[in-house]
Amino acid sequence: MDISARIETAISRAIAEGQAGAAPPKLASALEYALTPGGARIRPTICLNVARACGDDKPGLADAAAISIELIHCASLVHDDMPCFDDADIRRGKPALHKAYGEPLALLTGDSLIVAGFEVLARAAHHDCERAIELIRILGQRTGMPFGICAGQGWESEEKIDLSAYHRAKTGALFIAATSMGAVAAGHEAEPWEELGDRIGEAFQVADDLKDALLDAEEMGKPAGQDVANARPSAVTELGVDGAVQRFKDILSGAIASIPSCPGEAQLAQMVRMMAERLIPAPARQAAE
Amino acid sequence: MDISARIETAISRAIAEGQAGAAPPKLASALEYALTPGGARIRPTICLNVARACGDDKPGLADAAAISIELIHCASLVHDDMPCFDDADIRRGKPALHKAYGEPLALLTGDSLIVAGFEVLARAAHHDCERAIELIRILGQRTGMPFGICAGQGWESEEKIDLSAYHRAKTGALFIAATSMGAVAAGHEAEPWEELGDRIGEAFQVADDLKDALLDAEEMGKPAGQDVANARPSAVTELGVDGAVQRFKDILSGAIASIPSCPGEAQLAQMVRMMAERLIPAPARQAAE
Repeated sequence: MDISARIETAISRAIAEGQAGAAPPKLASALEYALTPGGARIRPTICLNVARACGDDKPGLADAAAISIELIHCASLVHDDMPCFDDADIRRGKPALHKAYGEPLALLTGDSLIVAGFEVLARAAHHDCERAIELIRILGQRTGMPFGICAGQGWESEEKIDLSAYHRAKTGALFIAATSMGAVAAGHEAEPWEELGDRIGEAFQVADDLKDALLDAEEMGKPAGQDVANARPSAVTELGVDGAVQRFKDILSGAIASIPSCPGEAQLAQMVRMMAERLIPAPARQAAE
Repeated sequence: MDISARIETAISRAIAEGQAGAAPPKLASALEYALTPGGARIRPTICLNVARACGDDKPGLADAAAISIELIHCASLVHDDMPCFDDADIRRGKPALHKAYGEPLALLTGDSLIVAGFEVLARAAHHDCERAIELIRILGQRTGMPFGICAGQGWESEEKIDLSAYHRAKTGALFIAATSMGAVAAGHEAEPWEELGDRIGEAFQVADDLKDALLDAEEMGKPAGQDVANARPSAVTELGVDGAVQRFKDILSGAIASIPSCPGEAQLAQMVRMMAERLIPAPARQAAE
């Protein structure tokens, strides 16, 4: 099965688990709304590519790792879109979940998806108990406090922001989870894989800044021009479009150089390059050529 | 160490883990605000008493199980108090977390506490990997969808409520988690212990109905008379005070009768009786005598 099919199959299974038995129908439907149709599924794709590069000897565990990260990512989108944060009306080209289902169900959908992320890993533990525990540990670390995406979002409530801690937690954390959990699922150590995730996260942040500056809301599937509107730090504001594209390329080279030696090293480098290609919006690619 | 000291020590450790390193200070402080000073710590107390009754051969794992449930319980209080649910101003006699820290940090505090619940169990897995995975599986099942407290809360957004599924999930789920996780932490099967948790949950619901009807806001540390005000189903509305007290006693007898045979059976029955005594508000005890 190709990676995209593995991801969608595992997502469908997670949705079915959440909807089983006497589940309250609206919340059950909201879970599916939050997870499908998916975005680019970048994090689980990275996770499975790393697992493959490491031999992928327990594919059931790698699938669980990949999906657990996507569940947490979707939970964060649902909660971040709520009125007390971004108050976003659209997401992935359709009404944000709190607009479609109301705030109470949006809050519960996010909570349920966080829980589902850990449940998916617990259900896959029969493949390898020790690895499953390590995956759960990493997922927790990269989601909660003090280093996860919750911490990253928490920095936005501070007057003085530790910018490096902020970016590493808010954008980087789930990319670090993606690379290190892909490795752990295949029986490798987590630590040597953290730098790759960290750098992909940085590249992603710069690509996001470029998209926010260059695309309109329809192309993005969500509001554009938010960095300038909210006076957020952005690579484009700091360096201009060409400078940001150059920084993106530098980060990408560093990411590829950081890939630990493993059976599928060359193929993985190719995948990272291709994925990066797709991240940069066309107007920026043209500007840089 | 007595059970109460074990709980507070483990809670303090969980708070310290969440506040380590470069954590955003307000969110770090909000975690502590949500967890201390505690309420009655009923769920972790039940969990540790069941673990003791089953031999408590891995106390570190039992402590983690007990605390993980309390973390989820406190997360649910923080989220339930938010404006889109109960819009509560006070909790445990002090301002509700969203009143003290604002809505964004309340949302993130709940999210972080859910994650912390699973992290605590992953960190204790070195005691016994298989048991830790089973504990994580139960915690997920009793927290998320379709059977956990998220599902219970989700029923409140439905026009037609499945009342039995609603109560079992909303109030019962974490009591079932408490008894079955206490057993699993000590190497026993979960299933025979579910009925005890289920019945304690029912008794707790009736006691809560009695408190809501008979105590004032100061005695409760939160608003009183909410069942009548919100037209919620209540044992007192249905049966009167005496009838509700009688139902409480019947449920309690059933709970004690359901305790599986184990080394500490008699002591556990005594604990359940003592705890129940404290649950019923004084005016109802007097009315029933």
